[in-house]
Amino acid sequence: MHFASDNSGPVHPKVMEALTRANDGYAMGYGNDPLSQDVANRIRTLFEAPDAAVYLVPTGTVANTLALAILCQPFQTIFCSEKAHIHEDECNAPEFYTGGAKLTLVRPGDLMTPDTLRAAIEGEGNRGVHGPKRGPVSITNVTEMGNVYTLGEMTALCAVAQDYGLPVHFDGARFAQACVALGCSPAEMSWKIGVDVAVFGGTKNGCMGVEAVVIFDPAKAEEFEYRRKRAGHLFSKHRYLAAQMDAYLADDLWRDLARDANASAARLRAGLEDLGLEIVNDTQANMIFFRAPMKAHKAAKAAGAAYHYMEPDNLPDEQQVMARLVCDWSCSQAMIDDLLNVLRGAL
Amino acid sequence: MHFASDNSGPVHPKVMEALTRANDGYAMGYGNDPLSQDVANRIRTLFEAPDAAVYLVPTGTVANTLALAILCQPFQTIFCSEKAHIHEDECNAPEFYTGGAKLTLVRPGDLMTPDTLRAAIEGEGNRGVHGPKRGPVSITNVTEMGNVYTLGEMTALCAVAQDYGLPVHFDGARFAQACVALGCSPAEMSWKIGVDVAVFGGTKNGCMGVEAVVIFDPAKAEEFEYRRKRAGHLFSKHRYLAAQMDAYLADDLWRDLARDANASAARLRAGLEDLGLEIVNDTQANMIFFRAPMKAHKAAKAAGAAYHYMEPDNLPDEQQVMARLVCDWSCSQAMIDDLLNVLRGAL
Amino acid sequence: MHFASDNSGPVHPKVMEALTRANDGYAMGYGNDPLSQDVANRIRTLFEAPDAAVYLVPTGTVANTLALAILCQPFQTIFCSEKAHIHEDECNAPEFYTGGAKLTLVRPGDLMTPDTLRAAIEGEGNRGVHGPKRGPVSITNVTEMGNVYTLGEMTALCAVAQDYGLPVHFDGARFAQACVALGCSPAEMSWKIGVDVAVFGGTKNGCMGVEAVVIFDPAKAEEFEYRRKRAGHLFSKHRYLAAQMDAYLADDLWRDLARDANASAARLRAGLEDLGLEIVNDTQANMIFFRAPMKAHKAAKAAGAAYHYMEPDNLPDEQQVMARLVCDWSCSQAMIDDLLNVLRGAL
Amino acid sequence: MHFASDNSGPVHPKVMEALTRANDGYAMGYGNDPLSQDVANRIRTLFEAPDAAVYLVPTGTVANTLALAILCQPFQTIFCSEKAHIHEDECNAPEFYTGGAKLTLVRPGDLMTPDTLRAAIEGEGNRGVHGPKRGPVSITNVTEMGNVYTLGEMTALCAVAQDYGLPVHFDGARFAQACVALGCSPAEMSWKIGVDVAVFGGTKNGCMGVEAVVIFDPAKAEEFEYRRKRAGHLFSKHRYLAAQMDAYLADDLWRDLARDANASAARLRAGLEDLGLEIVNDTQANMIFFRAPMKAHKAAKAAGAAYHYMEPDNLPDEQQVMARLVCDWSCSQAMIDDLLNVLRGAL
Repeated sequence: MHFASDNSGPVHPKVMEALTRANDGYAMGYGNDPLSQDVANRIRTLFEAPDAAVYLVPTGTVANTLALAILCQPFQTIFCSEKAHIHEDECNAPEFYTGGAKLTLVRPGDLMTPDTLRAAIEGEGNRGVHGPKRGPVSITNVTEMGNVYTLGEMTALCAVAQDYGLPVHFDGARFAQACVALGCSPAEMSWKIGVDVAVFGGTKNGCMGVEAVVIFDPAKAEEFEYRRKRAGHLFSKHRYLAAQMDAYLADDLWRDLARDANASAARLRAGLEDLGLEIVNDTQANMIFFRAPMKAHKAAKAAGAAYHYMEPDNLPDEQQVMARLVCDWSCSQAMIDDLLNVLRGAL
Repeated sequence: MHFASDNSGPVHPKVMEALTRANDGYAMGYGNDPLSQDVANRIRTLFEAPDAAVYLVPTGTVANTLALAILCQPFQTIFCSEKAHIHEDECNAPEFYTGGAKLTLVRPGDLMTPDTLRAAIEGEGNRGVHGPKRGPVSITNVTEMGNVYTLGEMTALCAVAQDYGLPVHFDGARFAQACVALGCSPAEMSWKIGVDVAVFGGTKNGCMGVEAVVIFDPAKAEEFEYRRKRAGHLFSKHRYLAAQMDAYLADDLWRDLARDANASAARLRAGLEDLGLEIVNDTQANMIFFRAPMKAHKAAKAAGAAYHYMEPDNLPDEQQVMARLVCDWSCSQAMIDDLLNVLRGAL
Repeated sequence: MHFASDNSGPVHPKVMEALTRANDGYAMGYGNDPLSQDVANRIRTLFEAPDAAVYLVPTGTVANTLALAILCQPFQTIFCSEKAHIHEDECNAPEFYTGGAKLTLVRPGDLMTPDTLRAAIEGEGNRGVHGPKRGPVSITNVTEMGNVYTLGEMTALCAVAQDYGLPVHFDGARFAQACVALGCSPAEMSWKIGVDVAVFGGTKNGCMGVEAVVIFDPAKAEEFEYRRKRAGHLFSKHRYLAAQMDAYLADDLWRDLARDANASAARLRAGLEDLGLEIVNDTQANMIFFRAPMKAHKAAKAAGAAYHYMEPDNLPDEQQVMARLVCDWSCSQAMIDDLLNVLRGAL
Repeated sequence: MHFASDNSGPVHPKVMEALTRANDGYAMGYGNDPLSQDVANRIRTLFEAPDAAVYLVPTGTVANTLALAILCQPFQTIFCSEKAHIHEDECNAPEFYTGGAKLTLVRPGDLMTPDTLRAAIEGEGNRGVHGPKRGPVSITNVTEMGNVYTLGEMTALCAVAQDYGLPVHFDGARFAQACVALGCSPAEMSWKIGVDVAVFGGTKNGCMGVEAVVIFDPAKAEEFEYRRKRAGHLFSKHRYLAAQMDAYLADDLWRDLARDANASAARLRAGLEDLGLEIVNDTQANMIFFRAPMKAHKAAKAAGAAYHYMEPDNLPDEQQVMARLVCDWSCSQAMIDDLLNVLRGAL
């Protein structure tokens, strides 16, 4: 019963096979091997962006923050949700990679709206050099709270950014899960609506550790390359990043794995609702936030279920406590049934 | 005939097997899995340093620069050889990770001596706050030019650092190759002679992409952890870094692979000497710098040999040109013979 | 009718005289002159802190941010009011000087309370390395909104910081005005209640451009000195910073000027209340935030009064609009009368 | 007998008068006062550069490093003489302000030549992203060793930079002294030969603490303004920076003071030559490097002369030791005579 995170599951067998396949003989380092070039081209094709610059890096944190670094000057501020991963879970990495830019939190809540985003932008950049200059807007989809912006909502946020001449960064650690939930193409979810740099995440969807950064303005490519090297994120044995992406792209594996993850979450959600439990978020993706009495969480934990509570866990048995369940591609029906059974027994 | 770099060869089969073995079911992320803990303990044992803090990162650049970041303030300067990798080949990564420290180059040449190091230290730190404060000494073994410091030489350099109260960083991208060449233990090549932080490299010796940073003063551990996360180098699926190191440590695979690499280089060197070619460095490790007439390099290249020349390659046929040959664990006798034959034919 | 800022008034004549007096013959640079040493000693005496390290810098921004830089690691977060000058008006200077630390805003409002501060601290530092580590607490008195923390309130805030082992920075751009309003000594408003580094501001109180940074733990002195030089804030002709402070300290000029500024504000406030206008803040210091109908502000502006409105100034005549009035030492009774007369006429 | 530095002398009376004159009534802060605007315009006129952006800052270190920050990316390297002030005497300020750029030292010696500069540039930027990208060339005139590049020499250095598409920074801490020595105009010594940003120094030539940064491409202006504020170098009471420059510009005071300083040095040099002492540099500006037996330096010091020796001062009496003498505008014939007499007596 492993619902703690979509990074605690195993690597998909096809990704492992691709790694083994790539492990044959010699290959030039630092991305100068044929497979690395091929994978970049296929991502360009997938995004219908023949001129895009495409780079592979090993973690979501560096994918996001290198992307921000080429969009943001040190004296600017980045606009993002107050729940954004770049604010909450990257230990000042955006500040580090940008050389000291600020994050302006769009409030309240997980999902930005054109109004809350506009209010945040209006609140900065009106004090001349005394405050930071307005910088990029960062949008996450699927969000940290498991919500999915519709294409219309993303488009509206990009339009606000455009009103102010600000570039848009898309944190796509769960790009695939959002794309599948929306039934759209990668291009429709990125450059067609005004995204400047998109992260196409693999790590949370069956890969070992690889994210593609897709930069739609190739004039930014050289800066990215220097900044990546300077950060120690240019892999010498780059073919093993490429191999993961090779499998991930082949036959749209990325879509299949995301579809499986989302479907598992949908089944789990339906089961929780049947138990009369409150669902907090409204996503069609792979994360569920729900509330249950503490005693139910305790029973689940005792039975070996792994997931995070949002409150200190020394609360009274009857108190409703929010928790997060995440499904990845490897989540089985048996795991879902087991968890629902344990919770049912405890309620 | 692949002699371009020890990062262009394949991953050793035992490392691939360990990755597959680790890919079983669920594991907590970010290093909180049992394998990651186990590997750290085994590295402590290997270094005879039960209190050391041990961390895994994916590249040599970040291993070195995070190590320097916890040893060096932004207003200090790092002393290193003018040929050091941290100066020549890391695109300002030390400056980035330290927040703007300087590198003071110890001159001339690849190998520092107590005298040249002392002169460099004396040349800094005597202008009060007008110049940078003296910071760490960084020693590389095997050096960038393929030389190996003896234990006595390393000890003497550490003693100079100690005279000035400066910490010592050991760039061990080829730690194994040096250790085998010297016939010593990891402890003898690190804390026993005064090294404060050592990098125990795996990437250039059969791994896919993993380096261990061994910090002998555990009081520095917390800072390292925050800085690693902030840099986007804390892997969520950390077990796949650990798995590589698991295989690398088992039955001293690291020694076997380094011994093979060094032995291949020794055979190749003997063959070059038999051809009457000048050997530039005097290493017992896995890199050879030698001179041959341009026509010999051209013939080798035409025959498919891959290695780097140190000069522009549009030189006259008879001109002596320096080149670098690197052997890794996978270098075969056939490859060596082939190269020697091609060169012999061209001379 | 100049009420725009306490940095738009002239330098006090005694400060100008001290500059002229100091302009005699030769003096060693960089603070190695007798006057600079003497002034530092007198500040130590004033603060009853014989071991404190004392440094002069030319602006409040650098005084605050160098102070924070020696208290805060790049992977930490600084706790401050959401209205704090370091957040609102220093263009990412804290992020720059700390090397990328974050600011965690204590909400809501201008004045922190032990509860809101504690809640902010609890909200950070509980996610391990995923979020920033808890760093210093920054307290401003007089606040940006012209409020004055009582000694009891400051003590309570420092106690919260102490509960978490966090250092305290005191932004004292208006240290004198607060000190006079509270009727306490500098020591009582700083180290005696737990402040680690205090800024003793001169620029907003009759000096030309000088702030003293008072560091109560002398072990931090060397780091400050290097960081100051590295920032280009070590004046070569340092005696002219010292001369300003010389006059400022002599016969407690700093107290006299602050007392005059506060008294002017008190008279102005009384006059505004007589006119039936709403006073927004409750300070006894030198800033007044009040509301008046737009037509009154327009009339004042037309008559030559200089002060800032907090809203766009194209509002309807009858709309109540908040504005800020600041008095410095040079504010005359005539100026106050003139402004009150204009406002009275327009209401 | 004060020859230690051109920053240990007094401020010129006309500068003090201008400060007093500016100290009248109220003025908008942060450079929004009429005098600040007027001074910027006059500097544009002086440089025959009507579109240049002109900013005042208080120290040479910040003038140079903010200038470099707008010319240099963090992943680039700056080319400068191994004796350059930005390398030797600014405590990593260039690294700090650029966010981690490197300095590549042009060797050997104080004066760069087109050949040594070209060799340094060729030595960098040929390793792709593994080394830093080539960044600005920084030229100092008068140099740290008191030499003066001719206009032809400066032009040739700028031409090398232009060959590689690199911008040029001019460290003009002693801009006036060089300009007078060369008998040229500020425009001839800057944009007319290819300088992108020039520092027009006042502090070492009779001002209290002010340098003008002259940016010939106004597109860089906004970035400079944000970076200046972020560094705490935007003075709130900006009129007092402007006032110094007001006096400095009036009736070409800057030329008169530089001419006086250079003339004093010429007389001093002639006297030293008469004594048979070796002059090391060949400048026509205000600094002399010469050698004398240690006993002569000791005698001078005992007689109250202040200047720097380049060697440890515990050397044998007869040993020749290099020393530096600096004249500023206030240097009198009596001071020169006294020093020469003391030295003569000791030889």
